[in-house]
Amino acid sequence: MPAYATNMRLKFPIVALVLEIITIILYAVFVDYDDGKGHGHGHSNETHPEEQNPMTLYPMFQDVHVMIFIGFGFLMTFLKKYGFSSVGVNLLLAAFGLQWGLLMQGFWHLDNGKIKVDIFKIINADFSTATVLISFGAVLGKTSPVQLLIMTILEITIFSINEHLVATVLEANDVGASMIIHAYGAYFGLAVSRVLYRPALRNGDKNEGSVYHSDMFAMIGTVFLWMFWPSFNSAIAEPGITQLTAVLNTYLSLAACVLSAYAISSLVEHKGKLDMVHVQNATLAGGVAVGTCADMNIGPYGAMLIGLLAGIISTLGFKYLNPILASSLGIHDTCGVHNLHGMPGILGGLAGIVAVALGKKEGQASMQAAALASSLGFALVGGAITGLIMKLPFWGQPPDQNCFDDSLYWEVPEDEGENEGNLAHTDHSTNKAEA
Amino acid sequence: MPAYATNMRLKFPIVALVLEIITIILYAVFVDYDDGKGHGHGHSNETHPEEQNPMTLYPMFQDVHVMIFIGFGFLMTFLKKYGFSSVGVNLLLAAFGLQWGLLMQGFWHLDNGKIKVDIFKIINADFSTATVLISFGAVLGKTSPVQLLIMTILEITIFSINEHLVATVLEANDVGASMIIHAYGAYFGLAVSRVLYRPALRNGDKNEGSVYHSDMFAMIGTVFLWMFWPSFNSAIAEPGITQLTAVLNTYLSLAACVLSAYAISSLVEHKGKLDMVHVQNATLAGGVAVGTCADMNIGPYGAMLIGLLAGIISTLGFKYLNPILASSLGIHDTCGVHNLHGMPGILGGLAGIVAVALGKKEGQASMQAAALASSLGFALVGGAITGLIMKLPFWGQPPDQNCFDDSLYWEVPEDEGENEGNLAHTDHSTNKAEA
Amino acid sequence: MPAYATNMRLKFPIVALVLEIITIILYAVFVDYDDGKGHGHGHSNETHPEEQNPMTLYPMFQDVHVMIFIGFGFLMTFLKKYGFSSVGVNLLLAAFGLQWGLLMQGFWHLDNGKIKVDIFKIINADFSTATVLISFGAVLGKTSPVQLLIMTILEITIFSINEHLVATVLEANDVGASMIIHAYGAYFGLAVSRVLYRPALRNGDKNEGSVYHSDMFAMIGTVFLWMFWPSFNSAIAEPGITQLTAVLNTYLSLAACVLSAYAISSLVEHKGKLDMVHVQNATLAGGVAVGTCADMNIGPYGAMLIGLLAGIISTLGFKYLNPILASSLGIHDTCGVHNLHGMPGILGGLAGIVAVALGKKEGQASMQAAALASSLGFALVGGAITGLIMKLPFWGQPPDQNCFDDSLYWEVPEDEGENEGNLAHTDHSTNKAEA
Repeated sequence: MPAYATNMRLKFPIVALVLEIITIILYAVFVDYDDGKGHGHGHSNETHPEEQNPMTLYPMFQDVHVMIFIGFGFLMTFLKKYGFSSVGVNLLLAAFGLQWGLLMQGFWHLDNGKIKVDIFKIINADFSTATVLISFGAVLGKTSPVQLLIMTILEITIFSINEHLVATVLEANDVGASMIIHAYGAYFGLAVSRVLYRPALRNGDKNEGSVYHSDMFAMIGTVFLWMFWPSFNSAIAEPGITQLTAVLNTYLSLAACVLSAYAISSLVEHKGKLDMVHVQNATLAGGVAVGTCADMNIGPYGAMLIGLLAGIISTLGFKYLNPILASSLGIHDTCGVHNLHGMPGILGGLAGIVAVALGKKEGQASMQAAALASSLGFALVGGAITGLIMKLPFWGQPPDQNCFDDSLYWEVPEDEGENEGNLAHTDHSTNKAEA
Repeated sequence: MPAYATNMRLKFPIVALVLEIITIILYAVFVDYDDGKGHGHGHSNETHPEEQNPMTLYPMFQDVHVMIFIGFGFLMTFLKKYGFSSVGVNLLLAAFGLQWGLLMQGFWHLDNGKIKVDIFKIINADFSTATVLISFGAVLGKTSPVQLLIMTILEITIFSINEHLVATVLEANDVGASMIIHAYGAYFGLAVSRVLYRPALRNGDKNEGSVYHSDMFAMIGTVFLWMFWPSFNSAIAEPGITQLTAVLNTYLSLAACVLSAYAISSLVEHKGKLDMVHVQNATLAGGVAVGTCADMNIGPYGAMLIGLLAGIISTLGFKYLNPILASSLGIHDTCGVHNLHGMPGILGGLAGIVAVALGKKEGQASMQAAALASSLGFALVGGAITGLIMKLPFWGQPPDQNCFDDSLYWEVPEDEGENEGNLAHTDHSTNKAEA
Repeated sequence: MPAYATNMRLKFPIVALVLEIITIILYAVFVDYDDGKGHGHGHSNETHPEEQNPMTLYPMFQDVHVMIFIGFGFLMTFLKKYGFSSVGVNLLLAAFGLQWGLLMQGFWHLDNGKIKVDIFKIINADFSTATVLISFGAVLGKTSPVQLLIMTILEITIFSINEHLVATVLEANDVGASMIIHAYGAYFGLAVSRVLYRPALRNGDKNEGSVYHSDMFAMIGTVFLWMFWPSFNSAIAEPGITQLTAVLNTYLSLAACVLSAYAISSLVEHKGKLDMVHVQNATLAGGVAVGTCADMNIGPYGAMLIGLLAGIISTLGFKYLNPILASSLGIHDTCGVHNLHGMPGILGGLAGIVAVALGKKEGQASMQAAALASSLGFALVGGAITGLIMKLPFWGQPPDQNCFDDSLYWEVPEDEGENEGNLAHTDHSTNKAEA
């Protein structure tokens, strides 16, 4: 069974070290510190405050950093036996991805043949990893670390092309990246998931659920994402009132979104109970959906309406659409990224088209529409091709019966007692299907 | 049993959505971004740095934000079966409360008929939710989400009146809000708890305790509150040396408080052991008690003495006073907010009277005393009235036997194994008493 | 058995309160707020930005604060039954240590007989506690809170002497403190551990391991340390481009380190699996090792090479060296601080010698070498003497059979059910060996 040669002993170290060494060589050739003497940053063609003080954006960077490593990492720990992989592989992919993203984005903006790194560029490098972490959510539990490193390289490379197209060629607005990160990351991941579809898991897996404490760990991720999302949407906004606007719109959109996500959760669940899946995810949809418009003069109530709508759409998606995607289209979406990033990302793109058409910010509605189409197109085509490459039989993909289980790729602590079976969440049976 | 009609399916979604929609309409009419052309902020009549750069206070805001959502949210997760409600309802109440607080506080400071939102105002909006989250601690486990939304509206509305009175009419000092947030929130919650008293729970409930990992989750809340408290007490202080003073006094008060809280915990407990209840809560009393004086020239050792005393009082309160409150006065205080916020808040108010009398800051000792009395008066009267409203039989209050148990209002994951009873913290029996 | 008189009821409260009261008296005599009129900070003889605005460094301070209290605190919670002690005693030691460190460091830089506190000084006070928390990792589970308070006083006092020697006398570079904090703290702790060696634990203790959720809690510590390490290494750097360089070098070193730590972990473990011990610790070695060079012009690729190497050394140390230290040298290192702080700290010191020799920053290679030797010398001699004092029989040291178990010093929640033995991680038997 070569497809299930899940022993990572040689292939993972070789892939990881070779990638890192190639990256270091590229850094030696192309990357240098920003000495403050360059001009412009390419992404938004605006003057950035670090031209006065190179550390001005550092607190924003750290907020984004927390979202990437704690936020995404812990949000995915809800699975009962997959916490090590969620937070651990998240760290791996983001640590490699930010190095790769800095290169891929930097190649579009060389300065005397060099990428001059500053805080603005490492914020964007962190952003580029978000696309991968969103896609990771779609395939969580069904892929090997090596497959995911391959995905990281390809997804960030393609992201950088689309970002350049959207920001520099189309000159579209997307300050909070509803389109170029959220919609792109979600549909890329769904395309990968479609290609890697496993019919045997159609009816669900016994490990594909949470236990009480794994849901609590996931809430750490949710709350950090929720709190720092205003930084995500405003980090690269024009300084001053525009940046303040991006903060306030995101703050208010998220607040309104919580109310609608909870309300709809209670409305659709058994006896009006709240569902942690909705609380963990749909409360964040307001941050995604307000992204494109965040720095626009849409009014505080406009931001709140976007958040309200996003919370409703996202919760309904989790409840009704996710099962249909799996059963009818063969798209299994472990974390429901379609509901948190996909649909709200499209909503954000559509809101941006309307807002620009209404003159809330300079720009052309047609270019906004082209940016949304471009992001979805690159995502679906890029994701499908990436999925085919990930499907090659030598990347250590897990067999069906070992999905959603850390013990295939991790040393998992043995339960102390000899009692079998009655400590389900710490009894990690091992090695069932290793070839 | 209409009082126990705990099915939330219609009442919760209707209340939540109606409140949110009313709020959005009020925002459409009254709220706009601050364009930087207004003058003054009303709260402290001082020049704030955001008049130069609107983002100056943003890192302070994020620290306060973390205290509200992670700090309060996780601090209350110590109960073995009530973690979803603690962190989840905390998010719900704070998300709604900040929207409502911004309105209620803003109505006192209209600028051409508009509330002009800036970072200073969203810090204050976050602050207003702290009162609710403190009161939530007093009634934790004994109230429904709908009851708590009602409490949020009423408590923040009354808070805004008292805050206006204290800050603008009395011109009292309370930079860290020992009186207007901590004492107010605690006694408001205790008054509500008194009105909602349940004699059947007099002897404690089997679910009203912690398990090992729930105590660990609570420590996440404790430590984030402890670390960021200097930001809480200094966020709205006058920029420059005064703000630095508020940071330093709080930092040192909290450090001294840890030593006294641990020492007294060991002194009063069985065989000198430390008690997690004290560690989770009494270590924070120094931040509460130094609040009013935080920006005053009380000397570093003065701040440390306040912290030392607060740690002692708070720990002794948990050990000796809490049981008496419940047995003699019919006041059941789930999280011991009287010991963390109530008594230390009064201590802070008294310290402020003394410090102003000694000339450590401009002001009148009599106005400080009036501010303390006002805060306590509004809290007790407001809390009692709010409690009576919350007692109305159609808000879905939980029956006695389902208190302190998430499964009444939340979908709780089933334990994987079929073993009953021996996995207490993941075996969530459901629906026992739903009518 | 006087050595096992572990009842803390009198000795702990007395020691803690007496230390705190002495500290407050010293603060009353020696400590005052910085009024901004002083000159210089002694540590690096450079102009610091807070001379314009005293709050400029505050976000950096908060990042460091999070590393000290959440980072170190949760990193050590990996043990199955020692989470209360890990995060709780971490809080105790750091809260006392920062007060003591501010005094010990401040005595070298009196201004009119006063220590003038500002943000720069409280960052350094937090730094001084890091040495203790590193050493705490070496002796985790084998010492009483009273012993650890004694260690805190002595270790910080000696640290302040060495720091003064390195920074002011030798004028060596160590911006990220590879030598004066990491190597010093690690070898100090190893020397203490050697003196306190327990032959009975040579073959490991049944409690000296993790369970699934304790490993998850530890990842909270790991990830916060990883994210905020750029702040640790740059907090006291010269403002401007130099500080930016320190951020970027640390960011890139840590990213490269993750790849090499994961790769080597997979290479050396059973069937190529990843090991949480390596992920929790070795991923951070890049932050330690790049510390001395962080603000030097070593090039982004230079920082990445240091990180790559640190991840390899650290992981190999955990796998192969730790068992040898215990079996051959009688040095039991609970958290493996030798691998995370010791060897990477020396690597950092060596890298600093080379970098200065190559002219990457002003300085003398010989002074760098002397700084490294001084740090190691003070650590080993100071640690050995401290260990002897800690070995005195009246500090409540735990007996061998109660090591790594919270229940000796903490009230631990009883398991709810009556089932014995089958819930190992919440069944905390008590009092076995208290004399």
